[in-house]
Amino acid sequence: MRNLFFLILCFLWAGIANAQQNVGFRKGNIQSPEINPDHSVTFRLQADKAKQVLVLGDWEANEGKGEMKKNKAGVWEYTTPVLPSEMYTYRFSIDGVVDLDPVNPFTKRDVGNIFSVFFVDGGYADQYQVKDVPHGDMITTWYHSNRLQADRRLSVYLPPFYGKENKSYPVFYLLHGSGGDETAWVELGNVARIMDNLIAAGKAEPMIVVMPNGNSGKQAAPGETAENHAYKPVMTNQLPGYKNGDYELAFPEIVQFIDTKYRTIPDKAHRAIAGLSMGGFHTLYTSINYPTYFDYIGLFSAGLNMTTVDQTLPAYRDLEGKLKGLKQTGYKLFWLAIGNTDFLYEANQTFRKQMEAVDFKYVYHESTRGHIWANWRQYLLLFAPQLFK
Amino acid sequence: MRNLFFLILCFLWAGIANAQQNVGFRKGNIQSPEINPDHSVTFRLQADKAKQVLVLGDWEANEGKGEMKKNKAGVWEYTTPVLPSEMYTYRFSIDGVVDLDPVNPFTKRDVGNIFSVFFVDGGYADQYQVKDVPHGDMITTWYHSNRLQADRRLSVYLPPFYGKENKSYPVFYLLHGSGGDETAWVELGNVARIMDNLIAAGKAEPMIVVMPNGNSGKQAAPGETAENHAYKPVMTNQLPGYKNGDYELAFPEIVQFIDTKYRTIPDKAHRAIAGLSMGGFHTLYTSINYPTYFDYIGLFSAGLNMTTVDQTLPAYRDLEGKLKGLKQTGYKLFWLAIGNTDFLYEANQTFRKQMEAVDFKYVYHESTRGHIWANWRQYLLLFAPQLFK
Repeated sequence: MRNLFFLILCFLWAGIANAQQNVGFRKGNIQSPEINPDHSVTFRLQADKAKQVLVLGDWEANEGKGEMKKNKAGVWEYTTPVLPSEMYTYRFSIDGVVDLDPVNPFTKRDVGNIFSVFFVDGGYADQYQVKDVPHGDMITTWYHSNRLQADRRLSVYLPPFYGKENKSYPVFYLLHGSGGDETAWVELGNVARIMDNLIAAGKAEPMIVVMPNGNSGKQAAPGETAENHAYKPVMTNQLPGYKNGDYELAFPEIVQFIDTKYRTIPDKAHRAIAGLSMGGFHTLYTSINYPTYFDYIGLFSAGLNMTTVDQTLPAYRDLEGKLKGLKQTGYKLFWLAIGNTDFLYEANQTFRKQMEAVDFKYVYHESTRGHIWANWRQYLLLFAPQLFK
Repeated sequence: MRNLFFLILCFLWAGIANAQQNVGFRKGNIQSPEINPDHSVTFRLQADKAKQVLVLGDWEANEGKGEMKKNKAGVWEYTTPVLPSEMYTYRFSIDGVVDLDPVNPFTKRDVGNIFSVFFVDGGYADQYQVKDVPHGDMITTWYHSNRLQADRRLSVYLPPFYGKENKSYPVFYLLHGSGGDETAWVELGNVARIMDNLIAAGKAEPMIVVMPNGNSGKQAAPGETAENHAYKPVMTNQLPGYKNGDYELAFPEIVQFIDTKYRTIPDKAHRAIAGLSMGGFHTLYTSINYPTYFDYIGLFSAGLNMTTVDQTLPAYRDLEGKLKGLKQTGYKLFWLAIGNTDFLYEANQTFRKQMEAVDFKYVYHESTRGHIWANWRQYLLLFAPQLFK
């Protein structure tokens, strides 16, 4: 009886707090999304007055599109085919207004949009979620770039036990694509979970992962600069400094900052760099302009459409000569990954021929599908275990 | 001509990348919210088929409610009265479906819901945004609690120049309320910006701010534990371990972890603790159970409704005796803040009488309004400058 009284008080209190805080709790008993035992996924939405509701997701089946039907309880519902294990994003289109699933509290921002998110277990996605293993630290910090004349923000993952052991660590620089920023690999790439899980399983060496902001005309992600909300997310080609080579040429400032601030092993054998899309482009030109810096280099769906590059700029001139330079200096791994339906597929094949023409050794990985985060997470899962061994 | 060609290629590339990445850029030219020069705010939504659209926000005027009207261009629109400077959250109700503003990329999660967010400048909100000042680091890390038998996550702010100077810092422990977690003060409290701005202005001492997770039955925020999405945000009274006193009694484990990991000044004169709502309750019982730990104590809209407390539990028994104990040990500041319409107002007045009955000195601050983040951010702005001086 005393417990019952206590419980009633608790709920009463929660109710009042609610009203005042406007936290507007998820209403009713609608569960969405529901991951079914067969790994199909059911979405539900209470929208009494809507005429048409669609699910728009990033899975392959039916191109991620599903027409929802009103069920007997007046709730719109749709069940996907069986989905492979992945992290998926989706939104609802409610009579043409595209917005979040209002009962799903888990979201991710991708460039200018917010998506609802869910995981289908039993494969890749197990690596993208939290397991009961030791966890590293996630840090946002700021370095000063003399070349870019700005304090700039970056994300840093420190491996479990960093600072507890009298030990220094190798460093992996991981670069985002156009429209991304220093939060992209953390949020959409699930870097902390992937690294925690790979390290705990003994598949990857404990390492520091550094994720800088690759938009050289900006100091940080939208909302994190002194422009605050006046700077909204856009693709990087709409920002100043795009492909002028300053970012790549300024990269040693980041390495120096990290080597000063953290317990690193500050040599080439203990440095890796990789990036997706525009970040793959940045990776190529950073590594070949500074051939003494990185022993491990990864290009994920790299933006190697060289027709958009001004090859008279110091950073971008003499690709062939610089490839030869890196070949001469030496490196342990140059890894090129691309999906077979990626719009950059042909550009990557052209670049393979350029490398082969100067007998520049590389490892090629071809996956299915296109220019998508599912591929980039999987490339990270394949690339990180090859580092520092 | 060459530049034009380059531009066309860029946009073409962005277009294709878009299609493949499904980043689904903000469509059209709708701007929402628009902060008008007079500090009224206009919201806009493209919803051709909707019958009724409301804005539901957390400003005072009209209780944050606004009925949108379709304008000549077929866009729903509503303009608020002039709003005082603050960070505001809002959602749209579109024919009864309550969801984000789809063209605003800036969001915050409060307990179980995602809100669109904006700032009105010219007052308090200037402190909650990024300025061109030196920035501290934001960290998420994990400590082990023997008493709670778990690795547990916490958020840490390190002041600018930490580690660059041969210097140690005082520590401020800042606790969230029911339904919150280690991300609440960071996201909704804008702690990093507030501390950066106060420190840069010389108003607050450089200090470390530690924001633990106060849900003793959970290791971390929803989505950050090995339960992943199976653990959805709820008010803390729906979680195991609520108000059993374990969290308060286990608190020295957090202090020890922080004093080991960071450059702290590990004594009472250089430690503060404060919390909002449930966190104010945690603050009270942590500080009086450990009277040698904190010289600065802050209760923000504290959950002092003692009828819901089992006063036979070791942490909660003998409130009067423990107040006398802290009085005897000594402290520099005991600061109590409450809004005059807060549902906990009377409970806080009762507690004032309890303190006065044992001649326990405190400073009282009464604000307008109720149990809301606007008050808690303002209390932080008032409390932090009083510390370590």
